[in-house]
Amino acid sequence: MNISLSQASQYMFAAESVVITGHVHPDGDCLGSMLALFRLFQQKRVKARLLLDDEIPSLYAFLPDLHEIERPIEPIEADLLIVLDASDIERIGKVREYVSAPVLNLDHHISNTGFADYLFLDPLAAATGSILYSLFRQEGIKPDELTATCLYTAIATDCGFFRYANTTSDTLRYAAELLDCGVQPALVAEALETKPASNIFTLIHVLETLEIVLEGKVACVTVASDVLEIGESTDDFINYPRSIEGVEVAIMFKQTDASFTRISLRSRNVDVSAIALSFGGGGHKRAAGCSIASPLDEAKRQIFVAVASALEEVK
Amino acid sequence: MNISLSQASQYMFAAESVVITGHVHPDGDCLGSMLALFRLFQQKRVKARLLLDDEIPSLYAFLPDLHEIERPIEPIEADLLIVLDASDIERIGKVREYVSAPVLNLDHHISNTGFADYLFLDPLAAATGSILYSLFRQEGIKPDELTATCLYTAIATDCGFFRYANTTSDTLRYAAELLDCGVQPALVAEALETKPASNIFTLIHVLETLEIVLEGKVACVTVASDVLEIGESTDDFINYPRSIEGVEVAIMFKQTDASFTRISLRSRNVDVSAIALSFGGGGHKRAAGCSIASPLDEAKRQIFVAVASALEEVK
Ligand SMILES: [Mn+2]
Ligand SMILES: [Mn+2]
Repeated sequence: MNISLSQASQYMFAAESVVITGHVHPDGDCLGSMLALFRLFQQKRVKARLLLDDEIPSLYAFLPDLHEIERPIEPIEADLLIVLDASDIERIGKVREYVSAPVLNLDHHISNTGFADYLFLDPLAAATGSILYSLFRQEGIKPDELTATCLYTAIATDCGFFRYANTTSDTLRYAAELLDCGVQPALVAEALETKPASNIFTLIHVLETLEIVLEGKVACVTVASDVLEIGESTDDFINYPRSIEGVEVAIMFKQTDASFTRISLRSRNVDVSAIALSFGGGGHKRAAGCSIASPLDEAKRQIFVAVASALEEVK
Repeated sequence: MNISLSQASQYMFAAESVVITGHVHPDGDCLGSMLALFRLFQQKRVKARLLLDDEIPSLYAFLPDLHEIERPIEPIEADLLIVLDASDIERIGKVREYVSAPVLNLDHHISNTGFADYLFLDPLAAATGSILYSLFRQEGIKPDELTATCLYTAIATDCGFFRYANTTSDTLRYAAELLDCGVQPALVAEALETKPASNIFTLIHVLETLEIVLEGKVACVTVASDVLEIGESTDDFINYPRSIEGVEVAIMFKQTDASFTRISLRSRNVDVSAIALSFGGGGHKRAAGCSIASPLDEAKRQIFVAVASALEEVK
């Protein structure tokens, strides 16, 4: 059932005990939103627990209250399960097995499956953190500095520090208000940019695979299986081919194993979600992904054919 | 003479003809501010000319009216010379020889020398673009989409897309209002991130020089003379050593020639402006630079000694 934000807030604050969760492979929006809402419940003296069926990347160690996040290992009683930033019940992993309460879902993914009992969905919000901060505003609550830092992190990470097309004037206005609550934007940015030195060597390896094809309109990099095995974050590396002059479609191939290849696609104008969809994947018009159960070379061949024909169409 | 922003506006709009200039090695703040003010004068039907004693980097080709910017080659009559984003008269090059009008300076550099007849200085403004937008607001003028794009570019570039410590809530609030005027933040960000493919190869070369010294507290990269000769922008590359876990001071050495080395310094806490100053350079506490008239190896040795002793002090 679709509900309004004020209804969501009514359901939330009618509960005497809540469990808050988010999606596996948590990102800044997921974690920042979970922690901000947890801190709000604590302030309101409502019993709240944080559950997440995944590890927390060390990148986010600067956020407060991370130690409160538990892994789901046994049944938990609660009046309400609040699912943040997850568009599909599968995305919360084992949490759904251990919490049998009604589900309230706050989300901004247009692809939301409507799995929850109560859903507030705002696909125009840059982040679930924006939705949550709207809720704070609506309730007339000014977040304390640490809560504001959680909300700011949620918002800033999901809109690429205000550089992605999902950035709206409200995104920036909310960020401004959160600075007035004490957020130090440079500290958040620096914390999130911090990487192990080994990540630079990984970057060199990946950049050395740069190929520019189809008359300079397509650039791609490849993360070979031995680089993938190091287990470092390589997701951002697609930004390097993407930012090359004249490139319309950027591609990153990840050689998951000898017979399986994962593909990320970015574009300026071409609809790459259509390409991804044709291989069983999905995403947005300008950022999409898919997998092909083929070795790297064959996967590359198939993707290049699909991209070439998409480029032909827009001519 | 220090004046208020409304006095600055009075002087500006009392003139019947103005020349607008900015600093050599123009950046996004300089160019965006110049163009936005030019467009405001045009709207008010005041005779305005844009002068700049330097080339315009192709990076900014997306800004409007760039073709209106002239090089100073002959004397120009005007009632007022408006100098934007320049803290020192030397920074406007030959423009001062050819325009003999009184000088009005709008700037945000704390190091401003007070060279102008009339100075509005706001060292807390993230950019001269922020000061100019304050002026638009004060005059009750809503910028059109292209003018707003100039102002947004000025603001966003000088605060590292809202990631640097000079970002204030007003910086973000102004950016929000400029989006309401039609700015598309992703288009600005993409235009500014676009690079020639060769820049990726240059990056690889520079990253391969990464050295981590002084127990992991100092990381440096070196731009060798042959890489410098390619003439590509390497200024951002210092962000790679800067973002390494545990690194307190990041250094970039540029081997200008066999006996001259330029040094950029970034830090988390150490006062690197003091180090730069001890070599005749300068800057801010956390971002500074200097030159040493020695070959690369000797310059490195001297800088490492200075950085080691600065690190020792903060222990
Ligand atoms: Mn999100
Ligand atoms: Mn500036």
